[in-house]
Amino acid sequence: MKTVLVTGFAPFGGETVNPSLEAIKPFAGWKTDTYTVETREIPTVFGKAIETLYAAMEDVVPDLVICVGQAGGRPDLSIERVALNVNDARIPDNEGNQPIDTPIVPNGPVGYWSTLPVKAMVHELRRHGIPASVSHTAGTFVCNHLFYGLMHYIAESQRPIRGGFIHIPYLPEQAARHPGQPSMALETVVKGLRIAIDVAFRQEEDIATSEGSIC
Amino acid sequence: MKTVLVTGFAPFGGETVNPSLEAIKPFAGWKTDTYTVETREIPTVFGKAIETLYAAMEDVVPDLVICVGQAGGRPDLSIERVALNVNDARIPDNEGNQPIDTPIVPNGPVGYWSTLPVKAMVHELRRHGIPASVSHTAGTFVCNHLFYGLMHYIAESQRPIRGGFIHIPYLPEQAARHPGQPSMALETVVKGLRIAIDVAFRQEEDIATSEGSIC
Amino acid sequence: MKTVLVTGFAPFGGETVNPSLEAIKPFAGWKTDTYTVETREIPTVFGKAIETLYAAMEDVVPDLVICVGQAGGRPDLSIERVALNVNDARIPDNEGNQPIDTPIVPNGPVGYWSTLPVKAMVHELRRHGIPASVSHTAGTFVCNHLFYGLMHYIAESQRPIRGGFIHIPYLPEQAARHPGQPSMALETVVKGLRIAIDVAFRQEEDIATSEGSIC
Amino acid sequence: MKTVLVTGFAPFGGETVNPSLEAIKPFAGWKTDTYTVETREIPTVFGKAIETLYAAMEDVVPDLVICVGQAGGRPDLSIERVALNVNDARIPDNEGNQPIDTPIVPNGPVGYWSTLPVKAMVHELRRHGIPASVSHTAGTFVCNHLFYGLMHYIAESQRPIRGGFIHIPYLPEQAARHPGQPSMALETVVKGLRIAIDVAFRQEEDIATSEGSIC
Repeated sequence: MKTVLVTGFAPFGGETVNPSLEAIKPFAGWKTDTYTVETREIPTVFGKAIETLYAAMEDVVPDLVICVGQAGGRPDLSIERVALNVNDARIPDNEGNQPIDTPIVPNGPVGYWSTLPVKAMVHELRRHGIPASVSHTAGTFVCNHLFYGLMHYIAESQRPIRGGFIHIPYLPEQAARHPGQPSMALETVVKGLRIAIDVAFRQEEDIATSEGSIC
Repeated sequence: MKTVLVTGFAPFGGETVNPSLEAIKPFAGWKTDTYTVETREIPTVFGKAIETLYAAMEDVVPDLVICVGQAGGRPDLSIERVALNVNDARIPDNEGNQPIDTPIVPNGPVGYWSTLPVKAMVHELRRHGIPASVSHTAGTFVCNHLFYGLMHYIAESQRPIRGGFIHIPYLPEQAARHPGQPSMALETVVKGLRIAIDVAFRQEEDIATSEGSIC
Repeated sequence: MKTVLVTGFAPFGGETVNPSLEAIKPFAGWKTDTYTVETREIPTVFGKAIETLYAAMEDVVPDLVICVGQAGGRPDLSIERVALNVNDARIPDNEGNQPIDTPIVPNGPVGYWSTLPVKAMVHELRRHGIPASVSHTAGTFVCNHLFYGLMHYIAESQRPIRGGFIHIPYLPEQAARHPGQPSMALETVVKGLRIAIDVAFRQEEDIATSEGSIC
Repeated sequence: MKTVLVTGFAPFGGETVNPSLEAIKPFAGWKTDTYTVETREIPTVFGKAIETLYAAMEDVVPDLVICVGQAGGRPDLSIERVALNVNDARIPDNEGNQPIDTPIVPNGPVGYWSTLPVKAMVHELRRHGIPASVSHTAGTFVCNHLFYGLMHYIAESQRPIRGGFIHIPYLPEQAARHPGQPSMALETVVKGLRIAIDVAFRQEEDIATSEGSIC
């Protein structure tokens, strides 16, 4: 029996809800024939986000880690391809920190690739009717921060853990307060995460179809 | 007991599904204390759309009519404010017609206002967590065509029927084939239509808050 | 010798410049073999905008009138097709008025069509490398207000004046303060207006190609 | 006297013009008191793009290199912050190559940061009325390919060359054939590049203001 760790973030930026936190709740204690899922809430705070993740990883000893975060303005499940070693906060985090152009890991590599099969995930999601795409930027706020922290941990640990990050849209109730912004129902997101976890779990090699962008 | 007629369109433009048709199905035969709902499918064909609507109106004798249509690319429930007397088809309809700059009703007025309380509907939808907005263009395809036909019938009949049009986003399964497009879950749309019908039914006067656009 | 009246608006909404005002300046006193151009600045104020236009029309006695306005967020020259009889101001005008759901002309028709050859203008603009499109909504602020006032004057006067409205993007210097918004260089706008005036002047009948929108 | 190398790409993707190639032409042989500019055309072909750049760098021995590329759909001058070590071509290049998920430099680092003062450039551009922003993805086509190749050369050479990449919008004449897409006049782009080169040349340290994105 293997273990999957799935994380979501606390609400931030004036929102009272974070879709990533709502979306992971149904996975708490979820079991299939081959894996069980553990869920954790991550504070939307630079530094503490990574500390909380690392404590969870020591506790859970996962084989697969998927961090989930809110991407207000995006219309689909964005499977992130790369984490960058920079904090550049456009707004303060939940404790008022607003780092600008600081490294997440001093002397760490510029970036880490997701080790999830991002294209296989996108294709399987679409096949099940869930809007999804590969993203080449996870931003420069706490989401990217956590994603980089995750991949750095995995790289340093040299254990065969696989990890990645998924950005999800606003919930409809959030978009109702942000006219013009796209949203996705919680049920659609949850169904999508279930598929994404499943594909990530059973497939190590990605598929070779283009999901690139010209610019 | 009053009667509400709700219509949806047949799939068009290469789609195998039309969210408006799916969204009205749960309302077939739906009853509340004060009204019953009748639903009808409208062909996505210039001319026949209006003929089918008129036959339904003769049959049902509704007090309130809400026509629903697909607006691929829009992120929310768009409550249409005005119908224009022009057909200008960017693509052929389901029978290959592609009228350009023809009037829907020769010598008819340039436009008809919706007689639904469009702003009250938007506000009540948002209050229930459903993304919604007032729209000032229903396009120039079969949706606007039907909307204009509806309002013309009401104007001519001089009966106290009230009517309007709601555009809805792609379903997630459609957006999965149109990367980058927003979508809305069927359940969210259905919940929204129920609220919209309810507000439209019980409220004749609209509220006076701005939902205007600068351009 | 015929006369063309071209108008632009005063800056509004916190801007220090209005591209429509800048763009009409080069046309002041401009003459071709067949027409001369008069330009006027219109205050961005409900009521006064129309009064100023009407005074100019009495003064100039134009054969053709093209009103120009700023459409922040639009990427091209939007040739407006229809004016609607409603004021619904999302922000106050330059004198603090913010009418909501008032008619521009009590008991006036719902809308007036532009009497310019909107599609011929779009096609000729594109042929000269100027981004352009037909628009089916001029908004509900002072631009639509003026446009409706213009077309109402023409309808009432029963003189063979032709008229319409063109929305233009932010200038680059404005977009530099609104990151993510499209813009158009003043030179491109001016070149486009010259083409638009020319086509509008020499062509009464529009061309029959689709510039419709599905929704 | 120092030397700046500025490159632009050949047209691709069905376009007959590439704004980056047009925009660098006025800089050929351009001199200021402290530097001269050399320009080169880069083929829009994986592999050959980098070979051509490297030959130019051997030839010119530049102190500063700015590569420029077309970003159809973007509204402003995008100063790229990071190049990624991946080719993922959504369309074929000009010789029919369409690499998917291949490294640009086998065993090269995941990414390279631009060594230009990207935020100082954005701020100075905006101050001069030129729309600009920091971008965190240069895509996965030949633009990113060249950018990565440039930064790899600089890293390997251990010479004090500084380098980066700027994406620019469609020209108006291109957007006229892609309705709805933003554009920028050649004159605006050229003015912007001149400012960008100047800032890049005279300023080594970047400024510490946030240009980050939340996601």
